[in-house]
Amino acid sequence: MKKIILLLSTIPFLLIVFTQALHAGELRREVKPVRNVILMIPDGTSPSAVSLARWYQRYLNPERQRLAIDPYICGTVLTYSSDAPIGDSAPTTSCYMTGMPSNTGFVATYPVSSGKADLVPVDPSRAYMPLATVLEAAKIMRGKKTGLVVTCHFPHATPADCAAHSYSREEYGHIAMQMVHQNLDIVIGGGIDYLKPDLRSVLRQRGYGVFLDDMKGMRSYAGDKMWALYRPREMPYDLDRDTASIPSLEEMTHIAIAKLNRSEEGFFLMVEGSKVDWAAHANDPVGVATDLLAFDRACATALEFARQDGQTAVIIVSDHGNSGISIGKRGMAKSYDTATAYDLFEQLCRFRLTADGLAKRLAETPVDKVQELMREVCGFELKPEELRALYNSPDYEHSPIPLEERKQIRESMYSGSLSTFLASIYGLKTAIGFTSGGHTGEEVLLAAYHPEDTRPMGMYMNYELNDYLCQLFDLRGQLPALTDRIFAPHTDVFQGMKFTIVRGKGKTDESELPVLEVTKGSRKLRIAPFTNTVVLDKKVIELSSVIIYVDKTDTFYLPRELRLLLD
Amino acid sequence: MKKIILLLSTIPFLLIVFTQALHAGELRREVKPVRNVILMIPDGTSPSAVSLARWYQRYLNPERQRLAIDPYICGTVLTYSSDAPIGDSAPTTSCYMTGMPSNTGFVATYPVSSGKADLVPVDPSRAYMPLATVLEAAKIMRGKKTGLVVTCHFPHATPADCAAHSYSREEYGHIAMQMVHQNLDIVIGGGIDYLKPDLRSVLRQRGYGVFLDDMKGMRSYAGDKMWALYRPREMPYDLDRDTASIPSLEEMTHIAIAKLNRSEEGFFLMVEGSKVDWAAHANDPVGVATDLLAFDRACATALEFARQDGQTAVIIVSDHGNSGISIGKRGMAKSYDTATAYDLFEQLCRFRLTADGLAKRLAETPVDKVQELMREVCGFELKPEELRALYNSPDYEHSPIPLEERKQIRESMYSGSLSTFLASIYGLKTAIGFTSGGHTGEEVLLAAYHPEDTRPMGMYMNYELNDYLCQLFDLRGQLPALTDRIFAPHTDVFQGMKFTIVRGKGKTDESELPVLEVTKGSRKLRIAPFTNTVVLDKKVIELSSVIIYVDKTDTFYLPRELRLLLD
Repeated sequence: MKKIILLLSTIPFLLIVFTQALHAGELRREVKPVRNVILMIPDGTSPSAVSLARWYQRYLNPERQRLAIDPYICGTVLTYSSDAPIGDSAPTTSCYMTGMPSNTGFVATYPVSSGKADLVPVDPSRAYMPLATVLEAAKIMRGKKTGLVVTCHFPHATPADCAAHSYSREEYGHIAMQMVHQNLDIVIGGGIDYLKPDLRSVLRQRGYGVFLDDMKGMRSYAGDKMWALYRPREMPYDLDRDTASIPSLEEMTHIAIAKLNRSEEGFFLMVEGSKVDWAAHANDPVGVATDLLAFDRACATALEFARQDGQTAVIIVSDHGNSGISIGKRGMAKSYDTATAYDLFEQLCRFRLTADGLAKRLAETPVDKVQELMREVCGFELKPEELRALYNSPDYEHSPIPLEERKQIRESMYSGSLSTFLASIYGLKTAIGFTSGGHTGEEVLLAAYHPEDTRPMGMYMNYELNDYLCQLFDLRGQLPALTDRIFAPHTDVFQGMKFTIVRGKGKTDESELPVLEVTKGSRKLRIAPFTNTVVLDKKVIELSSVIIYVDKTDTFYLPRELRLLLD
Repeated sequence: MKKIILLLSTIPFLLIVFTQALHAGELRREVKPVRNVILMIPDGTSPSAVSLARWYQRYLNPERQRLAIDPYICGTVLTYSSDAPIGDSAPTTSCYMTGMPSNTGFVATYPVSSGKADLVPVDPSRAYMPLATVLEAAKIMRGKKTGLVVTCHFPHATPADCAAHSYSREEYGHIAMQMVHQNLDIVIGGGIDYLKPDLRSVLRQRGYGVFLDDMKGMRSYAGDKMWALYRPREMPYDLDRDTASIPSLEEMTHIAIAKLNRSEEGFFLMVEGSKVDWAAHANDPVGVATDLLAFDRACATALEFARQDGQTAVIIVSDHGNSGISIGKRGMAKSYDTATAYDLFEQLCRFRLTADGLAKRLAETPVDKVQELMREVCGFELKPEELRALYNSPDYEHSPIPLEERKQIRESMYSGSLSTFLASIYGLKTAIGFTSGGHTGEEVLLAAYHPEDTRPMGMYMNYELNDYLCQLFDLRGQLPALTDRIFAPHTDVFQGMKFTIVRGKGKTDESELPVLEVTKGSRKLRIAPFTNTVVLDKKVIELSSVIIYVDKTDTFYLPRELRLLLD
């Protein structure tokens, strides 16, 4: 395989210092570039969730009154989609990565205009086009190593936003292909099912250590490039984690930093506390608090490294609020101003599993052991009406009531799964309120460490955070040009040449994909989407960026330089 | 009247620079002292309320995407009572002012220990004792001018915390006396009813301009010292304000700064956006957004002054969260991620009055004009069941249903007042969620301007914010000594002398108060509580601090130097 590193810009970048006027007399400071950037995203974390995690930690250990991120909180970020004030994970981290807020479900992809509903100017002619990310720019333009560490399945919205492009976050197959072909140096997270055998082969051929549910293997691997995945889809909540087989986010972060830091060029690492968001959606206050604390420990690791290293910036910011979570709610036994820490947090801190973790255990528990399990995990038993709701649920296979009968019953305490049933019981027993099972539109907290203390401060718009991240790598204003270079429409790139889109006819995801064939004289260039390879005649050529195909525009987006192969 | 300025320390204060280790390697910076400090408190403002206000402003004017405070957001504050994680206004601002969190209802007063529920070490022997505030220290130890600007009635919890002491925030009479006798330079706010005729006399005797519901008088007054009060109790919400008779918080702030800034010594000013909290308690999203915007305009004034002045720090921080307010809630017509700004904010921005303002109008509106009023103020009419609820309410005097009959009806849509009835209708029509009608326990946003940029950054505990405020006036660690000097128990101060507490027998608040009489030989010192004057034989002597009497301890707390008058 011939390897051409296309597009690796070595021209020294002239730093243009902007000082952006926000208000009369108020200026943002010049940002000093650094060697390494660690972006830490606790997904779906409202400011109140941070407070809840802190109180949870303090209640369990009164000496530990602060989170690792506390000294670094320096502002907030207003995060929204291009046409909706309440953001969705795909378009919000897209914006951090590309500078452009997008539509719900869009992964590092230019939005479709929603007319008057647009919150930022949207150019309709650019709809659905891939947008270069900070990760891609760091890798291609600055030669940085790159890594992703998450607890969701790896092609999920937030990691996808860094290293893939799609107008549908649900296109896990296409996204996973891109992430493999992105040549990331480190990926640690969930989602073994999404790393299909062909993708595993690609990784192994390219010299990766690939570890699937193999914590020992991950820990002992001496190589630089690694994928380590756990569980078929997402990883369990930290509270439910089997510590013998599943690493903590803290350990995953530590390993990623250690490997990435071997490079001379520096690195970009994104670490997501993915499931704070999931727990918030489920209205499970224990899941929110404990997964956020697991994330905070990962932040501690990153911050400790950065402080020692002296060339690393750490940016900690959520992508949107979730669930309208609050400490205190209507109908508490005591008035809010006299409720003690015991009243507010004792039961919360007693749960030994998240609602989801308990649901998995409960599903396997025979009727006569249910109350014992409840006592063990929650410290209380189910009330008669709660027990009845459990027996009536179609998801409890040990129920003494026949399934057909259960399916007929409309049970108000039960609405969909054992997990939501238990989350509602957790909710009833604690003093934590929720206004929603969906995202919410408040600004999120921003925390940062910068070795020369040129941190982002004040309220940042989501696109301004992208600008800040770019500045950390001397990349200010460079993403549009990179997008133009690596994601040019094939109709532009091969203008004047003969090209055809050959439609797939096979049955698997990959073989169904169309292929672009370009011919010039006797030479033939074959371009398959979502990979970083093209085949020139019979020679495989590896690129430094992935090729995107968008069915809406029936267009391949690819490097302009590909034309040179045929010219 | 002989005037002795007792206790005005002129000894240069030796600055001891502490750098407080928070985490390994993390230090807080030395704080540069300034001439003036403006403390701006939006009462009961959750971070989500700030976001709501910003979206409200932006929806009405897409060019105005930022709040005045936005560039200055620099951290958060965890604020709590001494024995309750969810704070109450009295003990939380008490803590900002004194460094000690207290019990619910306690105004700048040492808490009673709640045993295991204490969140900070509490010394039971100090229960109920007054604690010197930053305002008192600024005035007495640094010769600063002082001012309070609020929209609640002036003896309400937050302003009281700055300039009075009581274990009951409800003791408005005692608190008002103290605030008058505190010799504040500027007081602008609500609460004419609480400034009794005798207190008005005191103010006039002491050379104050006193303006009661007299905006013209206030505006044209050329003197330095002024009390300007509006309305019998609290001032109206900004949205409901009659601009011809009630000044904006912005104007009040501007006037206060202009007058205070005439002094050579500098000043301490506290400005409270008092009623954000009230709107949050009422779950009225329009009241929250508009009163917070009125507060933000006051912040703009303070910040503009500070930037021009170059010797002024502005600290903006709420005292606690309230209501679990969120943008987005369960049961919205569209999914959160596709709800547009129109879906979320159009109706919210249409309301021409707060729920409370509309309630006042509705109370006076005959049946046949109700729907017209609703259309005018809200843009919609009441539904039949809502109209029925209105007619059934005991508070709607124009109801066609006899009052006795209405009192029998249990109306689920109506629970207490026209104002809460309308707030619930406002809630139904908007996409704003609430988890509670009470306070909530999340951290609040911290914003600050400092001419040398030594701002508080990161997460501050409430008592650390006090420490920061003290540092701004070179007062670090000085409050305990000041407390000991100005609030010493009379039993200590007059040890070895003959003293008696003479109980009041009269009918008014003031004459019911006990009086302390101390005799030595033929000399007699008469000490009335909640004033700053004592009578030695027949001579009135004015002090620079107020005298506190606490019935729980049956003790007067007063300056140690008073003994010198008899020695």
